[in-house]
Amino acid sequence: MEISQLIRVARGEEPAELLLKNARVVNVFSGEVEETGVAITHTRVIGLGNDYPAQRTLDLNGKYIAPGFIDAHVHVESAMVPPYEFARAVVPHGTTSVIIDPHEIANVLGVEGIEYMLEASKYTPFSVYVMVPSCVPATHLETNGGVLRWPDLIRFKNDPWVIGLGEMMNYPGVLLRDQEVLDKLRAFFNRRIDGHAPGVTGRDLEAYVAAGIASDHECTSVEEAREKIRLGMYVMIREASNAQNLKALLPVITAKNARRVLFVTDDRFPSDLIDQGHIDYIVRMAIHEGLDPITAIQIATLNAAEYFGLHDRGAIAPGRRADLIVFDNFDRLTIEQVYRGGQLVARNGRVLPQEPTPRQPAIRNSMNVRWSKIDVRLPANGHKQVRAMGLVPDQIVTTQSVEEARVKNGYAVSDPERDLLKVTVIERHQATGNVGIGFVRGLGLKSGAIGSSVAHDSHNLIIAGTNDDDMITAARAIAAMQGGLVAVNKGEVLARVPLPIAGLMSDQPLERVREQLDDLTQAARDLGSDLHAPFMALAFLALPVIPELRLTDRGLVDVNKFDFVPVFAD
Amino acid sequence: MEISQLIRVARGEEPAELLLKNARVVNVFSGEVEETGVAITHTRVIGLGNDYPAQRTLDLNGKYIAPGFIDAHVHVESAMVPPYEFARAVVPHGTTSVIIDPHEIANVLGVEGIEYMLEASKYTPFSVYVMVPSCVPATHLETNGGVLRWPDLIRFKNDPWVIGLGEMMNYPGVLLRDQEVLDKLRAFFNRRIDGHAPGVTGRDLEAYVAAGIASDHECTSVEEAREKIRLGMYVMIREASNAQNLKALLPVITAKNARRVLFVTDDRFPSDLIDQGHIDYIVRMAIHEGLDPITAIQIATLNAAEYFGLHDRGAIAPGRRADLIVFDNFDRLTIEQVYRGGQLVARNGRVLPQEPTPRQPAIRNSMNVRWSKIDVRLPANGHKQVRAMGLVPDQIVTTQSVEEARVKNGYAVSDPERDLLKVTVIERHQATGNVGIGFVRGLGLKSGAIGSSVAHDSHNLIIAGTNDDDMITAARAIAAMQGGLVAVNKGEVLARVPLPIAGLMSDQPLERVREQLDDLTQAARDLGSDLHAPFMALAFLALPVIPELRLTDRGLVDVNKFDFVPVFAD
Repeated sequence: MEISQLIRVARGEEPAELLLKNARVVNVFSGEVEETGVAITHTRVIGLGNDYPAQRTLDLNGKYIAPGFIDAHVHVESAMVPPYEFARAVVPHGTTSVIIDPHEIANVLGVEGIEYMLEASKYTPFSVYVMVPSCVPATHLETNGGVLRWPDLIRFKNDPWVIGLGEMMNYPGVLLRDQEVLDKLRAFFNRRIDGHAPGVTGRDLEAYVAAGIASDHECTSVEEAREKIRLGMYVMIREASNAQNLKALLPVITAKNARRVLFVTDDRFPSDLIDQGHIDYIVRMAIHEGLDPITAIQIATLNAAEYFGLHDRGAIAPGRRADLIVFDNFDRLTIEQVYRGGQLVARNGRVLPQEPTPRQPAIRNSMNVRWSKIDVRLPANGHKQVRAMGLVPDQIVTTQSVEEARVKNGYAVSDPERDLLKVTVIERHQATGNVGIGFVRGLGLKSGAIGSSVAHDSHNLIIAGTNDDDMITAARAIAAMQGGLVAVNKGEVLARVPLPIAGLMSDQPLERVREQLDDLTQAARDLGSDLHAPFMALAFLALPVIPELRLTDRGLVDVNKFDFVPVFAD
Repeated sequence: MEISQLIRVARGEEPAELLLKNARVVNVFSGEVEETGVAITHTRVIGLGNDYPAQRTLDLNGKYIAPGFIDAHVHVESAMVPPYEFARAVVPHGTTSVIIDPHEIANVLGVEGIEYMLEASKYTPFSVYVMVPSCVPATHLETNGGVLRWPDLIRFKNDPWVIGLGEMMNYPGVLLRDQEVLDKLRAFFNRRIDGHAPGVTGRDLEAYVAAGIASDHECTSVEEAREKIRLGMYVMIREASNAQNLKALLPVITAKNARRVLFVTDDRFPSDLIDQGHIDYIVRMAIHEGLDPITAIQIATLNAAEYFGLHDRGAIAPGRRADLIVFDNFDRLTIEQVYRGGQLVARNGRVLPQEPTPRQPAIRNSMNVRWSKIDVRLPANGHKQVRAMGLVPDQIVTTQSVEEARVKNGYAVSDPERDLLKVTVIERHQATGNVGIGFVRGLGLKSGAIGSSVAHDSHNLIIAGTNDDDMITAARAIAAMQGGLVAVNKGEVLARVPLPIAGLMSDQPLERVREQLDDLTQAARDLGSDLHAPFMALAFLALPVIPELRLTDRGLVDVNKFDFVPVFAD
């Protein structure tokens, strides 16, 4: 939009396109609520006032207007839908900008995965900014679908939607000055670099911050958050599906440090997006817990815009983007209208149809398994004891134990009666034929098998089951649908969630995915699991950075040693 | 400095160069004062703590450490010394970064003036960032030394020390969409653009903000500042030599909006720099007036760094520049040590010698007067009445009146007995031979003449006197010293302040300039003026943007009409 037109409309020489009048406008600059109106032309707010001349006027009768919410850190893939469907879920909840880190899809498809997300974000009803993933692959202990080194990443620096380097999970690599890691930090030293430093403290934290890393979303206690704020990090308070930190961290916020706090969702599953919402859910909860409502809204809007240097949004002021939400009050915070760039994009919980429609870029089948080499049998060779990963309900840490092996025909096999199940990770990116085999306790299946192509961070196929045949059936069923989740019993697929986009995301509407997931979970329950989220537990068994024992396509990993250990303990 | 070294030192694997221990560290992120130490290596803070291994340790015995102050808007030329001498004055007061707008020298030397300031700022003991002047010449009613259009300005955008576009004084040009002005705003739309909008309010202010202008330093009332903050402007609270706004504006600051406030000095004369100080003076006064000390320091440090996107400073944290001040307490705020980039640059009020020494770039003589055409006589041609500018003590506005002319030998001349003095503005840049002639009341000279090559904004020669001969003597004396200020009586120069750098700045130490100015003021007093600052009053007589009547080289300007009026009123 031309500056001269902005000026003309702002002066009232020419009518605005739209005036939202008689509103209570949350002013994140002054910290006040003003009874006034908001005049909008094209994509921009051009002025505040109830009597701007306008082509169209909407009387809000005292409803509130605030800037659209910004999610400062989210992995869209965790919602199992691509950006358009994610937008359909979160925009009605008031989110008008998201800063994504396409870490999951990059682990499957490398650079192609990042490009897919950039392309699939165009013409969606929100703004998608990208922090390029810094840690792909996440570790050297597994095989993934793409290796991103600094030359792969800097080519994205000129993309107008790329604003920095995503969470530097490899904090040991930073502290030990891994050359790869330093190269990436150097390549982005003049951009924002997000952090990920759970429990890192003292001098290690000083070093991590000195390296140029500016935020952290892994705080779980007030002490941890306070130390990070003191050292100059922006603390992103996370309220994810699998990690809720808001209540624990709220006491850290003071009038003087509130500007250094952001809200993020990190990972949200379809059911939570549908049932709870998105950033609005965090703001609402923060207010209910006693945070000043205007501070809560500053955190969800202006703070994120400032952290990322997105000076065109995060506030309602002349010249800024008209990314706005209309809501009833601070208590219920029911979002009734959402404007993005001056256009009404959602009303009463639903996204409105738009032109042009979002792109659905083509993407290749990510399943590349060398079936001829896949053998999930485990010859006992005289061993009698196996190491087992132990699930801890509702946590992603695992325990480890040594168990008596059940040996049948010379092979170590599952023993459902003792809840000792075989797990396999089948490499699916580079057709290496790698198969990792281990055991798990706590999954609870009495019959059949469950499997997933979502398995953090490398997203190989992970299958757990009571017998090898059902495990192979599950693996083949997942591959046949180009990725997804299945529950299998006696050679039959009981339920499935196809995730043909990189084996991570569905091509179906979010609500359909949620139904499929509910059916799938029910199937796992019918097979005997009493876990709240058996597939999440399964997916995280492959994550070799969280203690204690994990399984990758290359074998069993003792996370404390950060090295492989044999499955047999004797 | 290499990231890997920062990490090593931050972890304590290698000693820091310097540890300032047992201090009270003002943490502008958390809003707390921490009893701790600051470890420094090369240019950077690498950690906080009292027990960092270090090559050298300095026990501060409980003294305070804060980030170095940032002056967010200052015209160095007003101190009548170039950047090095300015640094010598302000660095001992804790200022480690200044954002300058070389508006004055650019009016004399155009692009060459900006380049001089960039060059003369190198190797000084503070960091100098430049906002390129947006309004050169200031008006079409005068002749200056250079015209800066957008192509002249954008060539500076790649200079690492240039961070934006300086104060857009031409707010009527913005509102009326002057093509030149819009071109400049467009050229810098993705950088910071400072504002200057005294009294602009309502829709005009909305339009000014919509045009992308992000700050204002001209607020004089709480209402004005509040409106500007609400609209998203950063309000720069100014405490200049000729405009003091701090006390009036302090009540605008609240816990929720304090992040949108900055401190600036705009214009400070040598005596005020020496007697009062710089940003420390504002911080001290703010604290004495009741502002929370940590908020005052946040405003003077972090806020300015954030506004300008200078993320390497404005706070004490690992990886940030070690720009630090050590002081006694919040009450006296006596700055005892100043570190810039980890080096001690000032102690107990004095700058320490440095290597390399600052540059003293060559600069051409800016005096270019066509003496053959200079004639300050004013033929009366039968007229009997003249318009006169009226000085208002300690203000820069003038009144206007019509006075009986004193006519001698057919020429209108000064009448010291009625305090009606002739004033002339002699064009000195382009040898046009332009001479503007008018009259002033309130200067009070009984004999002789005073003159100056500092005359805002075009800085032509301005001379006021009791007789034509002394006026010409004054003009020639100024030109002979390549610019400066003089007091003349009966053909003899009584006192002078040579300003050979663009006719604006001395090549002498600041203290010497101050003595010269004191002597000069005394000389003007001896000649009969009882004004507090007769040369400042004189300098502003040429500023055709402040009501009511002014004089340029092209004639008398009625500022309310923004056009010329004849000197004779009948």
